[in-house]
Amino acid sequence: MYPKNCWYVACTPDELEQQPLARTICGEAIAFYRDNEGRVAAVQDFCPHRGAPLSLGYVEDGLLVCGYHGLRMGRDGQTASMPKQRVARFPCVRSYPVEERHGFIWIWPGENALADPADIPYLEWAESPDWAYGGGLFHINCNYQLMIDNLMDLTHETYVHASSIGQKEIDEAPVRTRLEGDQVTTSRMMESVKAPPFWQLGMEANGLDPNADVDRWQICRFTPPSHVLIDVGVALAGCGGFDSAQDVRAGSIVVDFITPESETSMWYFWGMARNFKTDDVQLTEQIRAGQHTIFSEDLEMLERQQRNLSDNPQRELLKLDIDAGGVQARRMIDKMLQQERSQAASALSTCEAHAS
Amino acid sequence: MYPKNCWYVACTPDELEQQPLARTICGEAIAFYRDNEGRVAAVQDFCPHRGAPLSLGYVEDGLLVCGYHGLRMGRDGQTASMPKQRVARFPCVRSYPVEERHGFIWIWPGENALADPADIPYLEWAESPDWAYGGGLFHINCNYQLMIDNLMDLTHETYVHASSIGQKEIDEAPVRTRLEGDQVTTSRMMESVKAPPFWQLGMEANGLDPNADVDRWQICRFTPPSHVLIDVGVALAGCGGFDSAQDVRAGSIVVDFITPESETSMWYFWGMARNFKTDDVQLTEQIRAGQHTIFSEDLEMLERQQRNLSDNPQRELLKLDIDAGGVQARRMIDKMLQQERSQAASALSTCEAHAS
Amino acid sequence: MYPKNCWYVACTPDELEQQPLARTICGEAIAFYRDNEGRVAAVQDFCPHRGAPLSLGYVEDGLLVCGYHGLRMGRDGQTASMPKQRVARFPCVRSYPVEERHGFIWIWPGENALADPADIPYLEWAESPDWAYGGGLFHINCNYQLMIDNLMDLTHETYVHASSIGQKEIDEAPVRTRLEGDQVTTSRMMESVKAPPFWQLGMEANGLDPNADVDRWQICRFTPPSHVLIDVGVALAGCGGFDSAQDVRAGSIVVDFITPESETSMWYFWGMARNFKTDDVQLTEQIRAGQHTIFSEDLEMLERQQRNLSDNPQRELLKLDIDAGGVQARRMIDKMLQQERSQAASALSTCEAHAS
Repeated sequence: MYPKNCWYVACTPDELEQQPLARTICGEAIAFYRDNEGRVAAVQDFCPHRGAPLSLGYVEDGLLVCGYHGLRMGRDGQTASMPKQRVARFPCVRSYPVEERHGFIWIWPGENALADPADIPYLEWAESPDWAYGGGLFHINCNYQLMIDNLMDLTHETYVHASSIGQKEIDEAPVRTRLEGDQVTTSRMMESVKAPPFWQLGMEANGLDPNADVDRWQICRFTPPSHVLIDVGVALAGCGGFDSAQDVRAGSIVVDFITPESETSMWYFWGMARNFKTDDVQLTEQIRAGQHTIFSEDLEMLERQQRNLSDNPQRELLKLDIDAGGVQARRMIDKMLQQERSQAASALSTCEAHAS
Repeated sequence: MYPKNCWYVACTPDELEQQPLARTICGEAIAFYRDNEGRVAAVQDFCPHRGAPLSLGYVEDGLLVCGYHGLRMGRDGQTASMPKQRVARFPCVRSYPVEERHGFIWIWPGENALADPADIPYLEWAESPDWAYGGGLFHINCNYQLMIDNLMDLTHETYVHASSIGQKEIDEAPVRTRLEGDQVTTSRMMESVKAPPFWQLGMEANGLDPNADVDRWQICRFTPPSHVLIDVGVALAGCGGFDSAQDVRAGSIVVDFITPESETSMWYFWGMARNFKTDDVQLTEQIRAGQHTIFSEDLEMLERQQRNLSDNPQRELLKLDIDAGGVQARRMIDKMLQQERSQAASALSTCEAHAS
Repeated sequence: MYPKNCWYVACTPDELEQQPLARTICGEAIAFYRDNEGRVAAVQDFCPHRGAPLSLGYVEDGLLVCGYHGLRMGRDGQTASMPKQRVARFPCVRSYPVEERHGFIWIWPGENALADPADIPYLEWAESPDWAYGGGLFHINCNYQLMIDNLMDLTHETYVHASSIGQKEIDEAPVRTRLEGDQVTTSRMMESVKAPPFWQLGMEANGLDPNADVDRWQICRFTPPSHVLIDVGVALAGCGGFDSAQDVRAGSIVVDFITPESETSMWYFWGMARNFKTDDVQLTEQIRAGQHTIFSEDLEMLERQQRNLSDNPQRELLKLDIDAGGVQARRMIDKMLQQERSQAASALSTCEAHAS
């Protein structure tokens, strides 16, 4: 189950450069394209004529032309024209609220009337010149909540990412989970430790001694439906950790936008934003490649965990302190789902009232 | 749903050259082979001994020898012999009426008693020395009726085959659909147009100026259950079009035999017959290769259209004038299905009458 | 259906050398590993924390450490420890009786209390220095009983293995099937025949004239649940066949341990044990490679036979004299299944008696 009345990341602008994009989001098969004014549009990937996928077509005069028989679909899901045909009574297909913002295309797969672009989270690091960003996309065959669990409990770094960002002290540092408004925060501080390989690289890039003792932080922030932004980094030991001055630290934000495809698959947009050496394009690429390698290590674990859970649906999982972040996130999602259901139910009873 | 009491193309003779052929047709798993008199036989691909596929065996003395334990199957589905065994009471397997004619092997997957080889369509171009033929086979994961729709509405050439046989004028020419006996004909005439690349090739091959203005024709003829033969070609403008003399035209017959495998997959035998330069083997191969490329362009569209329809079973499709050929063909097929059902029902009530 | 209260071969020691092994046996997903004392352990491949597959982890201090968040699983299915956690009340997972013996790892997928290592068959050829052994493993998508049928009726050698061990005389020699205690024996003797290619190799390796007339034997011995050991070989004609002296014969034991994975797939441990030229490592490898090639010839037949049976569940198969070995084996298995069901039922009624 996934909430539908909310904004998800659908794709990145580069994915729309050559041709329309077919992507299923929250069970909805959607064709994305950019019209002639450069605005992104999203319509059901289903031609009302004969059911062909509109995404196999092309864009002309700002319309999505079906690649089978030339029906021209408007961004509102209404057929605009078709050679030699009167289209006024053609049935429409769904169109979806869609916004391009902060370097991503955002989609609202639920009820159109409820979509408010103001609800798209503001991403300071995507807008400010003080930040650089690099990222990528994985398709993973697991429920999106398993990915949220993964990111809200970084204990797994010790085991899954032992050779890059994992270290024994993660396990040993207590985890602290807080609920503030619609945000769940799980944080861990490790004092006077050695930096793991990935952060030694970061310190060197920032002109610091990679072998120095450091204070390390991990602050995972979940906001619904499935965004996880994680402050991570190290500072020379005793200088104030997360709150230390720029010249004694190397830090960044791990960016995770998680978009359900189906109950057992999802799109994972990952990346890293940093506010040091932002002009160093090579460093951006080096970090991106490193993150790609590290995050790939989670894939088999997540997909086989999903298979285990699908094969053992009756089995209850443990909810330990380290799982508190994921557990709180799930509660928040459950509340959204319940709200959507009761909205739908009241809409239904209104209909019934009209009908009777 | 597919009619079973009718002749379908099962395979081409070259497919039986080396060894028996396993092919599923209308849901029936069938082993095809050529006996020692050269006659093609078709039996259920199931050894009555232990269920091994007979198609993995070999032919000896005109019998299909099971490759597992040596049972020798006759073309009538009765076991002929087995080493050291008395086979008289072995249960039989289904045998299928099968005929080799006009360069194809034809199968009747329904009730054997109803099969009459005289119902196999006569193919003039396959028998006459005035014609040359080249073709191929695709396996496509879509219902066979989607392929009929495709061929009975060539509007799609403008979009799917834009670089070879498509041209804007197809869209603009009105389409005319007629029902004559058990044949549906959909035709389009385009007057004084430029020939598209494929037909420029045809004109050149026929000694005509490829840049001349032409009249172009497309006459699609559907006959049940799923044969579509299409007269296509161009003639110098004003010379009579389809009815013009041989020396001012380049024309051919697009051959389409469509055989259901399952509800969502099918075998597509395609080819082209032409009555000019029939001795030019290289031209035959060139046309075959070109047609292979062009017809390949339909595959993704058809398979994704099928997935869209499977995912949206409740959705009704439009029936425009350009769809009239496919719609009429569907009606004809539906009538056949209804007839088969009522035959089966009356057969059943006869049985019941006997039983009571 | 497969009996679960019995010992199956799970894997070979080399499969546990590098890391834990994930293998599904009789529908149970199991993680196998070797603890620090060298003892093999087998637990459900499911971490009680969050459902991760334990087989993706590693072994430390004799415990299987979950590769996701570091839970340490004991060989008894009880969590031994987890960083910063009290684990006493963690739910346990299944552990399985497992034994390393005769060069194989044996598993008891059923009720733990009933497992007695004394029931593991004694394999003389695996323990005695007078024997050499080489073998391999196939995963085959068919029910395990089809493999037993295959091995208990070597008629198929004539057809499936025509170029190596098959020969016409197999078909012609009568087959004799006996039931002795919990063993089914099917045997065939061929007198004064030419050795087939594989056995010509064997005779040469043993210093005999490969073109001499021989007496050939095949004695297939099935014991439940699914072990088939086959005495095979040739001796110079008239010297006593299977009972002849070592210097006029070449013989060996074909080893077949068949382990169900699911209703339609299985693990097939095959090999050959011989008591001549046992020091010749190259010969062992040559035989192993030859057997690999020969046994590979069965795969397509078995998998397509399975598909045929799955598609035709209503169809009854023949039970000829040549099938008697397989039929008797099936009866023995059916008796075991019935016994397991009645045990389960009586256990249930005991529970109910307690409850009321």
